[in-house]
Amino acid sequence: MPVKRVDPVPSDIEIAQAAELLPIMEVAQSVGLSEDDIDLQGKWKAKVHLDVIEKFKDRPSGKYIDVTAITPTPLGEGKTVTTIGVSQGLHYIGKKVFTCIRQPSQGPTFGIKGGAAGGGYAQVVPMEDFNLHLTGDIHAVGAAHNLLAAAIDNRMAKEARWSTNFLAKALCPDDEYTPSMRRRLEKLGIESAKPSDLNDDDKERMFRLNIDPDAVQWRRVVDVSDAALRSITIGLGGAGNGLVRETGYDITVASEIMAALAMCNDLADLRERMGRIIIGTSKKGGLRSAGRIEPITAEDLNVAGAMTVLLKDALMPNLMQTLPGSPAFVHCGPFANIAQGNSSIIADKIALKLADYVVTESGFGADCGMEKFMNLKSRYSGLVPDCVVLVCTIRALKMHGGGPKVVAGKPLDKAYTSENLELLEKGLPNLLQHVENAVKFGVPVVVAINRFKYDTDAEIELIRKRAQETGAEDAVMHNVWAKGGEGGAALAEAVVAACEKPNNFKFLYSDEMSIKEKIETIAREIYRADGVDYTPEAEAKIKLFTDMGLSHLPLCMAKTHLSFSHDPTLKGTPRGWRLPITDVRASVGAGFIFPLCGTMKTMPGLPTRPVFTDIDIDVETGKVLGLS
Amino acid sequence: MPVKRVDPVPSDIEIAQAAELLPIMEVAQSVGLSEDDIDLQGKWKAKVHLDVIEKFKDRPSGKYIDVTAITPTPLGEGKTVTTIGVSQGLHYIGKKVFTCIRQPSQGPTFGIKGGAAGGGYAQVVPMEDFNLHLTGDIHAVGAAHNLLAAAIDNRMAKEARWSTNFLAKALCPDDEYTPSMRRRLEKLGIESAKPSDLNDDDKERMFRLNIDPDAVQWRRVVDVSDAALRSITIGLGGAGNGLVRETGYDITVASEIMAALAMCNDLADLRERMGRIIIGTSKKGGLRSAGRIEPITAEDLNVAGAMTVLLKDALMPNLMQTLPGSPAFVHCGPFANIAQGNSSIIADKIALKLADYVVTESGFGADCGMEKFMNLKSRYSGLVPDCVVLVCTIRALKMHGGGPKVVAGKPLDKAYTSENLELLEKGLPNLLQHVENAVKFGVPVVVAINRFKYDTDAEIELIRKRAQETGAEDAVMHNVWAKGGEGGAALAEAVVAACEKPNNFKFLYSDEMSIKEKIETIAREIYRADGVDYTPEAEAKIKLFTDMGLSHLPLCMAKTHLSFSHDPTLKGTPRGWRLPITDVRASVGAGFIFPLCGTMKTMPGLPTRPVFTDIDIDVETGKVLGLS
Repeated sequence: MPVKRVDPVPSDIEIAQAAELLPIMEVAQSVGLSEDDIDLQGKWKAKVHLDVIEKFKDRPSGKYIDVTAITPTPLGEGKTVTTIGVSQGLHYIGKKVFTCIRQPSQGPTFGIKGGAAGGGYAQVVPMEDFNLHLTGDIHAVGAAHNLLAAAIDNRMAKEARWSTNFLAKALCPDDEYTPSMRRRLEKLGIESAKPSDLNDDDKERMFRLNIDPDAVQWRRVVDVSDAALRSITIGLGGAGNGLVRETGYDITVASEIMAALAMCNDLADLRERMGRIIIGTSKKGGLRSAGRIEPITAEDLNVAGAMTVLLKDALMPNLMQTLPGSPAFVHCGPFANIAQGNSSIIADKIALKLADYVVTESGFGADCGMEKFMNLKSRYSGLVPDCVVLVCTIRALKMHGGGPKVVAGKPLDKAYTSENLELLEKGLPNLLQHVENAVKFGVPVVVAINRFKYDTDAEIELIRKRAQETGAEDAVMHNVWAKGGEGGAALAEAVVAACEKPNNFKFLYSDEMSIKEKIETIAREIYRADGVDYTPEAEAKIKLFTDMGLSHLPLCMAKTHLSFSHDPTLKGTPRGWRLPITDVRASVGAGFIFPLCGTMKTMPGLPTRPVFTDIDIDVETGKVLGLS
Repeated sequence: MPVKRVDPVPSDIEIAQAAELLPIMEVAQSVGLSEDDIDLQGKWKAKVHLDVIEKFKDRPSGKYIDVTAITPTPLGEGKTVTTIGVSQGLHYIGKKVFTCIRQPSQGPTFGIKGGAAGGGYAQVVPMEDFNLHLTGDIHAVGAAHNLLAAAIDNRMAKEARWSTNFLAKALCPDDEYTPSMRRRLEKLGIESAKPSDLNDDDKERMFRLNIDPDAVQWRRVVDVSDAALRSITIGLGGAGNGLVRETGYDITVASEIMAALAMCNDLADLRERMGRIIIGTSKKGGLRSAGRIEPITAEDLNVAGAMTVLLKDALMPNLMQTLPGSPAFVHCGPFANIAQGNSSIIADKIALKLADYVVTESGFGADCGMEKFMNLKSRYSGLVPDCVVLVCTIRALKMHGGGPKVVAGKPLDKAYTSENLELLEKGLPNLLQHVENAVKFGVPVVVAINRFKYDTDAEIELIRKRAQETGAEDAVMHNVWAKGGEGGAALAEAVVAACEKPNNFKFLYSDEMSIKEKIETIAREIYRADGVDYTPEAEAKIKLFTDMGLSHLPLCMAKTHLSFSHDPTLKGTPRGWRLPITDVRASVGAGFIFPLCGTMKTMPGLPTRPVFTDIDIDVETGKVLGLS
């Protein structure tokens, strides 16, 4: 639908609520999807069936564009706005385009940051649906995650209470194995047709998982910013409530299950991934041969099937629309610092068959989201990106150049509101290092300058010159926030041109490298650290995971997005530092090794005045108020 | 759609997956709803807009039938099967009927009990949707509940850290009050146009809630049976994570918010209820006048608006269908032992305008769900029930008469598989006490005998004779499990006849009675206790809530469903016992006082072999396997 623009630009929610939307069925039809290919979720959202991948497999694939950014200020540099804006720009110049973005977490939506549907005249709508529950995918991830957590504590409590014979009888009342149990038999190398055939040793190996409470790495999750749950003690109140142990909560979007959902290619793949999730290890000793500890999986707990059942609808991407009515998939999770932070492979794959240009977004700076897009997501998808759009603002570059601190709600310093080529020049290396990094992957790069009213032509020209010297195809200013698709037309033209350039896509590291070699490759090539230091705990985990045969997995680094380094206060392009790896986790279901750089919180907190303070509902009209 | 029945009766999921469903749009149209009145949720579910109540307000209301049961065995007596079956029976004899049932919790679905979509040829379909997420209402309740929990701990942590002046500035950065803050000003009796006008004392009263950590009654919730979370310590790991305190998790369906959703009449009502939720009290002393403690509400925490926003879709009932295609609403929560356990007022109200007969279900035995249906739900709805259907099985009555223990998975004792009038006669008083109780509310009662193959004509005749002597209109056997609507036709005829009988509906207690008088009325009239004993804690809470002006509220008793008494081992009709009230909570948002009888767990646990052990997905077809 053509959008009537107003000047000055109203608030995001005012624009979103004033927009005339197309019925989502029409959006679906516009890309060749029929009623049978989708499940409507009200009038403005639809789940798209996975079998459309098969249905359209002979169609040519569209061009594949990844939007990423420089190291952001705490205000953000408008990456989602640009992602949607470049899509609206492509739509404006007459291209068939599909946008793939991630569903925001309700933690930040009600906490510090507000929603994430874009902004101004570059939005995915309706913004309330986008920011609130959407179609329940994150809740489904939470339900599956917490079901596994309950299964772990329940199993430990029951094993502490019952004899092996009792456990065997309770688990196999009809003297029959479930398919899940037969998988465990196979893993243990035990041949057995029915439980009553087992000798005592094999019965114990089979039915007593002997989970080490101190080695359980599976925490619980909730989609609320709740700092009080970061570290908790559970199982209090008596033996009926389980074993007392320390654990904690992460934000749901950081769940391994969210990553598995994003990284999988179909339902069968998801089922396998759920079974492979390692929740911890068995205790040393006991009947285990030579005191070796055994990784315990969701399959061993007989719960991977039920988890997959809980996720079967979440696996389908959610179709929505941009303000001018072009199609958008909203699927899987954000948080590219503590998670993989890219939208799903399945959404991208479907979109590539339905449009000529697919614009997908990687979270936070290119050292976080784009590195994972290239080394991790593309490894599992087999898809090759045709272009990287690297978003920057002149304000952020000046900040990286040493400009005064930028604080939300306070007036900007004069350094940011008048031309200052010297300060900009000082900050440019941050952009240029990201350009260099993107170029290392062999993909053409377009720099997108997200326009603020104080930016001058000379400043823009300086960025273009330096970016092109460093290997970028182009650097283009856009103004999609104020002008929608029209404001993104020039950027869209540059992207179209870049997509025609030669492409030499490659990963930065090979599967065969050791875990440490992979970490060190990223640290050197992307972050530009002098080296890597490991805590004894990290060393032990790397040895454990290598012994378990997991070193072939790619990495998902957990690192702050506010610096190339692990220290959020180091702006620009830090040099002469070493990367500390404090811990390493194995997310085998998601399909990666997860090294933690420095201190990383996997559960956000709330500020003194959370965003929810302004949110309410008009009880007469049902309209949401104050969502930002 | 006509259902092709097979003998022997296949499993529930086989029947459900073989059923030919009507597109839910057709079901909607069959009761006069248009496309604009609903939001499709895929092809088999739809949310119905609340404004249809206004649209159809001039239509006559249908007959209102509450289905309840005797004190059940652990196997359940087929109350949901009968609820759906009597509906299918009414449909079969040509009546326009609507069924209103509750959404099951995923805790039992994956834990002990399995799903709750009915069974055999009396089901609401698709059963996978019914049992899994449905449209996300329970998740929305959890999100709103846990957002409030995070707001509480965040506020306590921030108040512990900051001066009152800092808090005031952080909460009102523009020196302006939000609407929510103005409500608090009014409650405190402070007149103020803007924060900077406040004197120091008023500023402290306004911005420092001074929550007593030991008096926080708001726990957290999750829709998983997770015993390890019943009692936990949070806020560990340093001051940045909040204050260390003990708390715990309840199952989501026991949330006060679920009850508020069920008890409210519209969006405005829900918004007010969210604001009224009392999370605990302030500490004694400080600036509070004369050391009085103040109840702290969700409104005081400025989060009630955001909570309502999270619930705006959950407020709409979910339209589904029975096997023969008659309409069914699935809305709000189960657990009539630890919650109100009835489907929503809004669903019933809409259904009454769309059909001539509305069959709604109250959870567990009539001492639990029906008592709350009458005294609590009908008080808030203003609706008058026309008939009570009281479900029993001959097996359960024999158990109440002293028959051998009934254990799932073990063959039934001969006492249950052959005619035994003596044992039945001994167990009948349980049924008759429930009949007497229903009659006390002035509503005609029909006893529904859920048929098992061993039941004999003489046994049925004995039940009918005794039930009618005690005041029931009729007692009718049905066989809806094996025969669907046809098997419920005779029961449906009896219900139609009962609905024409005179109706003298009345509550058992008045608003004006004290909290203790209300408790004692229920204990005496329904449970038949000799008296009530209160722990010192319960006494103190009753005094506190009375002082707060809350004694006008009706009650929602938390009591085991396995006995008329608080002791689940006392079967039949216990006499000569006293009811212990161990604690009392005030659920002001839901609109009731919540007395706990004996030891009540508000979070179920898992058995050694949880139901999830059998659940999996066919990765080729996407079909759910093993859901029961």
